[in-house]
Amino acid sequence: MAWFEQEVDHFGWEPVNGSTTWEHRYFLCEPKDTKKPANGAPRPIFFYCGNEANVELYVNNTGLMWENAGDMGALMVFAEHRYYGESWPFGTEEASSKREHLRFLTHEQALADYAHLISYLKDRLSLKDSPVVAFGGSYGGMLAAWFRQKYPHIVAGAIAASAPLLAFGAWDDEAYWAAVTRDFTPAGGCSASCVGTIRSAWTPLFSRGSTPAGRAELSRVFGLCSPLNTATDVDHLAQMIAMALDTLAMGNFPYPSTYLSDPGAPLPAWPVREVCSRMDAASATDELSLLAALRDGSAVLLNASKTLQCLEIPKDQSYAGIWDYQWCTQALPQESYFGRTGDKDMFYPFRKSKGDVDKHCLHKYGVVPSRSWIEESYGGVDGLLQSSNIVLSNGGMDPWSSGGVNATLSETVVSLWVPEGAHHLDLFFSREEDPPSVREVRKAEVEAIRQWVGQATGG
Amino acid sequence: MAWFEQEVDHFGWEPVNGSTTWEHRYFLCEPKDTKKPANGAPRPIFFYCGNEANVELYVNNTGLMWENAGDMGALMVFAEHRYYGESWPFGTEEASSKREHLRFLTHEQALADYAHLISYLKDRLSLKDSPVVAFGGSYGGMLAAWFRQKYPHIVAGAIAASAPLLAFGAWDDEAYWAAVTRDFTPAGGCSASCVGTIRSAWTPLFSRGSTPAGRAELSRVFGLCSPLNTATDVDHLAQMIAMALDTLAMGNFPYPSTYLSDPGAPLPAWPVREVCSRMDAASATDELSLLAALRDGSAVLLNASKTLQCLEIPKDQSYAGIWDYQWCTQALPQESYFGRTGDKDMFYPFRKSKGDVDKHCLHKYGVVPSRSWIEESYGGVDGLLQSSNIVLSNGGMDPWSSGGVNATLSETVVSLWVPEGAHHLDLFFSREEDPPSVREVRKAEVEAIRQWVGQATGG
Repeated sequence: MAWFEQEVDHFGWEPVNGSTTWEHRYFLCEPKDTKKPANGAPRPIFFYCGNEANVELYVNNTGLMWENAGDMGALMVFAEHRYYGESWPFGTEEASSKREHLRFLTHEQALADYAHLISYLKDRLSLKDSPVVAFGGSYGGMLAAWFRQKYPHIVAGAIAASAPLLAFGAWDDEAYWAAVTRDFTPAGGCSASCVGTIRSAWTPLFSRGSTPAGRAELSRVFGLCSPLNTATDVDHLAQMIAMALDTLAMGNFPYPSTYLSDPGAPLPAWPVREVCSRMDAASATDELSLLAALRDGSAVLLNASKTLQCLEIPKDQSYAGIWDYQWCTQALPQESYFGRTGDKDMFYPFRKSKGDVDKHCLHKYGVVPSRSWIEESYGGVDGLLQSSNIVLSNGGMDPWSSGGVNATLSETVVSLWVPEGAHHLDLFFSREEDPPSVREVRKAEVEAIRQWVGQATGG
Repeated sequence: MAWFEQEVDHFGWEPVNGSTTWEHRYFLCEPKDTKKPANGAPRPIFFYCGNEANVELYVNNTGLMWENAGDMGALMVFAEHRYYGESWPFGTEEASSKREHLRFLTHEQALADYAHLISYLKDRLSLKDSPVVAFGGSYGGMLAAWFRQKYPHIVAGAIAASAPLLAFGAWDDEAYWAAVTRDFTPAGGCSASCVGTIRSAWTPLFSRGSTPAGRAELSRVFGLCSPLNTATDVDHLAQMIAMALDTLAMGNFPYPSTYLSDPGAPLPAWPVREVCSRMDAASATDELSLLAALRDGSAVLLNASKTLQCLEIPKDQSYAGIWDYQWCTQALPQESYFGRTGDKDMFYPFRKSKGDVDKHCLHKYGVVPSRSWIEESYGGVDGLLQSSNIVLSNGGMDPWSSGGVNATLSETVVSLWVPEGAHHLDLFFSREEDPPSVREVRKAEVEAIRQWVGQATGG
């Protein structure tokens, strides 16, 4: 673990509260068995573009880097994203989260942080000629691809895993929840009836939600800590369940994992199959049985520890924490705002209008999102066509694949598909339970990395 | 002339004084004889990346665009750079120039303005498929090249004329004044003695400058409006002369031009030759004669109108106006700060230390320059090697060629050289007096533009 004196603002020069720099956290790692590159070639740098969490999560889970750094003689750098983990431009989380201090939380500043950090490290470690390969998953994958697009002299290539690079502008956000739904079908190893059973559970939920007696019943059935008092409370219950099923789809890995659950409470292998086996126990004609099944199904995540006394509905309806600011400014995708139809997906009609979002963002942060800038700046597919050396991987079990690039665009901007893969499975450590498809994709990624490194070092 | 509602801050979301947008000025032009592109191809857009002046200067002088738009059926857009001309993010020059409002004066914001303006125009004018070619000279040439580097999906190619893209970081700034000096040699059509005569004039100037009687004499000889009171005043006199000789080198065109002088007072053709013919009249052994010749030589610019009663030393020792802020933040090159040796050049030893510059910038704007960011962000030659479709033209009479890219880097990042050319002569309207070299360079530029447009439209 190390700290770097980083600029608060790469794009402006106003002195900020006296200090214009802050302590940026990163991890410098290498596997124990790291070899030296052949023929005295400079050692590569594998650079993880930290996304919206404590960077230790990525240090501990990005097996693709750990398992290949040794052979290639690579040094690994895991950089934390500003305003997450312990990287606070104004010293502490509290100070940095003040409304007037949030304006430096943008992905452009984060990319500039990474460019600046790499320049510093190359200098300090005498690695001037080292080719850098960027890695990232999800938002980190977007950052990796964008890093290659905007700073190609710094990054020789990028592995952008499960990166919803196209989830902007005119993109159809309903495709997201349709993709969540796909996990609950036979394509995801579930029964043919699971989607229908889940879909039929919302009617009894909302009909009960419209009366005090019904809300009392729902509160009992779902074992809520605080009873439902209003129809809005019922909406929040439904949203909690939808978000749980979403998380289970993202985390629909072939082995038990805590990546998306609490550290002490791993999700089971193929957690969506577990949800569906619980749904399958319901009687489709018995409303209470349907509601109980919905409770039990969502409990695969919501009571993963199996120790909860009662269920608390989260206060943060964005389900996003400080990421909500990134949604409220640069419209970086946050599925809790995406539309559902109840038709293309297994949920119920749900739609946040632009007006709703603007109102929310103005109230919470005093800003409204700019919905065109990301597309203008990066150009979506057009921008990627102008770039090179980017692997865009996506998984058939990952709802974010709906916003990903799922076609190879050129010889070196390549799409890879993991049919059985949930959210960036390819980045994780190899496991016995891995489907052959992800093994193949990892091989192709390593092959691409070797090519980029070879090109960059004249090999 | 038209106005566009432009964002104040493309990279942050803090509400700015209530309004987050401003009126951005641009000109939309087409020659009268504009043809339609063959085969229904979309018409190209020729886009001038406004630099540090009123954009009308570029509208009126960028002949390369006007003379070729008609044949290619191109629409021309001349965009003004924020904080210049009439494009003021805070409504007026006065309000925008306040220290707390200057932080949005960065080249990144300007490029984002251009990207945003183009997206808007393509939409409004139904020119979605129109390939855009960026043009620019000097700082505008840097912007054009950087625009292609960072927004290749928006700009199909860039003509970057006399752009000192490498005048950053470890670049040897003394090369600049050595290049100024070259104009005054036989290579610039001057006598073999001119450089020596100018060089020998500084000793009598500074020796007189060290005593009150000497300063009184200098004040008389140079016809100053206010007498020189201190040695610092004498330094300012010398700097004024050096800057005048610099401007004459930049403006060393083969025909009379007002591009770098007052509108009513054109410089003569080959103005540096005129300086030297005045210097040649001096007696090298007569100190007063040398000083009078220096006065008369620099008067080619300083009294171009030949109507001045006396000579005023400018108060703004940066010789940069609001551009000084861009030097004080992003270290965008400003030659008044560059070092002179009196040895590699025809001047006298002059050196501003980093400490001097920091002190000046802190005092004037409350900031210190970031000297590494431009290189980190664009990568100098490494960054250009990763890009494509950029013409980098430079002139042998232009001191800024010292900071330019003067070698072809790849098949499509091409350097063109105009031996007789001063500052971006190739951008100007064709003239009888043009040397053959600039005609050839313009032809090559038009050929490159046709290729980029053809590629972009599948032609």
